[in-house]
Amino acid sequence: MISVDEAVQRVTRTFAPLPAETIALTEALGRVLAHDAIAPLDHPPAPMSAMDGYAVKTADARVGAELTVIGEAPAGRPFAGRVGAGEAVRIFTGGVVPDGADAVVIQEDVTAHGKTVRIKEAPPLGENVRDRGLDFRVGDALLERGRRISARDVALLASADVARVDVTRKPRVAVVATGDELTRPGEPRAPGGIVASSTYAVQAMVREWGGDAVDLGIISDRAEDFARLPAATRGMDLIITLGGASVGDHDLIQSALAPHGFTLDFWKIAMRPGKPLIFGRLNACPLIGLPGNPVSAMVCAILFVRPAISAVLGAPYASLIRSARLTAPLKANGKRQDYIRAKLSVSEGVLTADPFALQDSSMQRVFAHADALVIRPVDAPPAAAGDEVQVLLLAG
Amino acid sequence: MISVDEAVQRVTRTFAPLPAETIALTEALGRVLAHDAIAPLDHPPAPMSAMDGYAVKTADARVGAELTVIGEAPAGRPFAGRVGAGEAVRIFTGGVVPDGADAVVIQEDVTAHGKTVRIKEAPPLGENVRDRGLDFRVGDALLERGRRISARDVALLASADVARVDVTRKPRVAVVATGDELTRPGEPRAPGGIVASSTYAVQAMVREWGGDAVDLGIISDRAEDFARLPAATRGMDLIITLGGASVGDHDLIQSALAPHGFTLDFWKIAMRPGKPLIFGRLNACPLIGLPGNPVSAMVCAILFVRPAISAVLGAPYASLIRSARLTAPLKANGKRQDYIRAKLSVSEGVLTADPFALQDSSMQRVFAHADALVIRPVDAPPAAAGDEVQVLLLAG
Repeated sequence: MISVDEAVQRVTRTFAPLPAETIALTEALGRVLAHDAIAPLDHPPAPMSAMDGYAVKTADARVGAELTVIGEAPAGRPFAGRVGAGEAVRIFTGGVVPDGADAVVIQEDVTAHGKTVRIKEAPPLGENVRDRGLDFRVGDALLERGRRISARDVALLASADVARVDVTRKPRVAVVATGDELTRPGEPRAPGGIVASSTYAVQAMVREWGGDAVDLGIISDRAEDFARLPAATRGMDLIITLGGASVGDHDLIQSALAPHGFTLDFWKIAMRPGKPLIFGRLNACPLIGLPGNPVSAMVCAILFVRPAISAVLGAPYASLIRSARLTAPLKANGKRQDYIRAKLSVSEGVLTADPFALQDSSMQRVFAHADALVIRPVDAPPAAAGDEVQVLLLAG
Repeated sequence: MISVDEAVQRVTRTFAPLPAETIALTEALGRVLAHDAIAPLDHPPAPMSAMDGYAVKTADARVGAELTVIGEAPAGRPFAGRVGAGEAVRIFTGGVVPDGADAVVIQEDVTAHGKTVRIKEAPPLGENVRDRGLDFRVGDALLERGRRISARDVALLASADVARVDVTRKPRVAVVATGDELTRPGEPRAPGGIVASSTYAVQAMVREWGGDAVDLGIISDRAEDFARLPAATRGMDLIITLGGASVGDHDLIQSALAPHGFTLDFWKIAMRPGKPLIFGRLNACPLIGLPGNPVSAMVCAILFVRPAISAVLGAPYASLIRSARLTAPLKANGKRQDYIRAKLSVSEGVLTADPFALQDSSMQRVFAHADALVIRPVDAPPAAAGDEVQVLLLAG
């Protein structure tokens, strides 16, 4: 058995970022930048007015001065001429500040009569003018490679006139459930049969984390079914199996797949839930064999598949581990790192973790309603209520 | 001008949840449950073994006892008979515990010889048996109406044999940018022209928040273009305009749309960035008119569109407001609630907010890199470094 940390390292160092592909900016939300995004222009592209008012020369625009309004500069329609001595240009928010002007006096600070305005409040130099390049300049790095593109990033890239963006290709992740007892939801079941569940959760997680999940359905525990996997997973970037990692007297994944090109990296991790986790390769493709128990499978997906997908996307892995205070005691832990399902709340500014009374790994309802997993390291001594523990966040 | 809180209330109370639609469970991630999800079965459906071992009667399974193995119960293939006195059934994780057995002794605690096993460690009653209904029982409420379905929820529903799920229909949200100065990214621009940006961010946000965004493109500031909006937005659940809320001497949204069925609820909110926000109806459809300034538009979308979409989905609105400590002083605030862009970090377990030095609302790069908005209430006194403030989280 190896430790959780060693297992995460052995999994993630296997993956290098996939090649880039170019997509439309409108499709880029949540994708990962393959290169730094560099500004191709200054923004704003010219000095622009931050307010509705009059573009003036500050040297002229003393209190009481009367200026002649020689034209208009609404947004998108710059004034073609130049502001000379004693002159002003009517300007609107987003309008280009004309040559010769060095400030914008807001409309509330003038009295307009026909073609002239009288200054009531003198503007300082640069007042209400957004300088060319205030937001960014040509050549500036706007966003870093490896960043997941947010809605605000989409706006930033659009403002820089970026219509197409290079992102890391999404990994294709095949997900296959194994087990004679499994059926799909809504299908007829034999007595003792169980509805497959974790495969749908793992596929949903893969999509949330930025991969394309390919549902390879359910296969039986027979070797013939496993023999079809190499062909079915051709072109995949990662294969995830659920179950079969340790079925009774024999380990199906290893025994059934070894003749078809499976090579093992490690098997068995010192953790609970989730000991029987397999990592290896099916021919060229990395394979993560998750346990058949649904809660164990989902916990192992969060611990090992999520960083694997971050690695293959070239995105830095954002830790979901936080400190919290226990609301109840926990007993000493043994030789496997334990992940205890808990509710989180904030009490007087402090994050608290309230472990569920029942922790059986078959309890999916408890797991669905958990906010976090309290991490109990190997050989952790008993913990008292109020003790600080590390928790792994499950929900945002 | 009305306060931000009043504006949020006036917006959200306009919306009632949309009708339900039935979709496949595999499509349900992120959708909102229209009804409580009730378990149609017990889970597990029968007592099941938590381990690989032997199903026994505890009355017989004393240390040193020899039991006759009368059959096998792997997962999915229950043993048809009954465990009698002096008998045991070979069982595997997920196998149904046969009638007559009341515990499972793990294989490490027996010595097997041919068709018999000798007990090395006596199991207590119920050892390694997951009772029928341990996870949930028929009729239990598994998940509450209004909940956004997570990956773990998908697994829970699948385990309850739920193949199709009733969710609130996604709202159709039309998004239209207005402004003579605007072009799409990658299109040719006239001098003084600006690339439309916030419309793409707002559409991305609408999708993230659970709506279907319908891109109505860019229209000019001419009344004829506005006149086409009622027909173009037929069947929508919400219309979002960007810009035109206060262009110089006239307000385009109100003046151009009034002849086509626009009725105003309110206009102008005491906030910065974002004062000119319109809320009303275009015929039957609610309309939110966001400011043209991109940062203002995005802040107003987060403050007003996000709760509107939660309301129309029937999902409780999860507050994104937290307490944090300032790293730098802030000056006193005036009559508009201010939203100061800041970076967040955690220092010795305390959330800290570090405001950007430049806060101009034209600065999209600052906004893209902000983690939160520090909320400065109307008439807030000066704040010192170390003071506690409320922040609105922008990123998870």
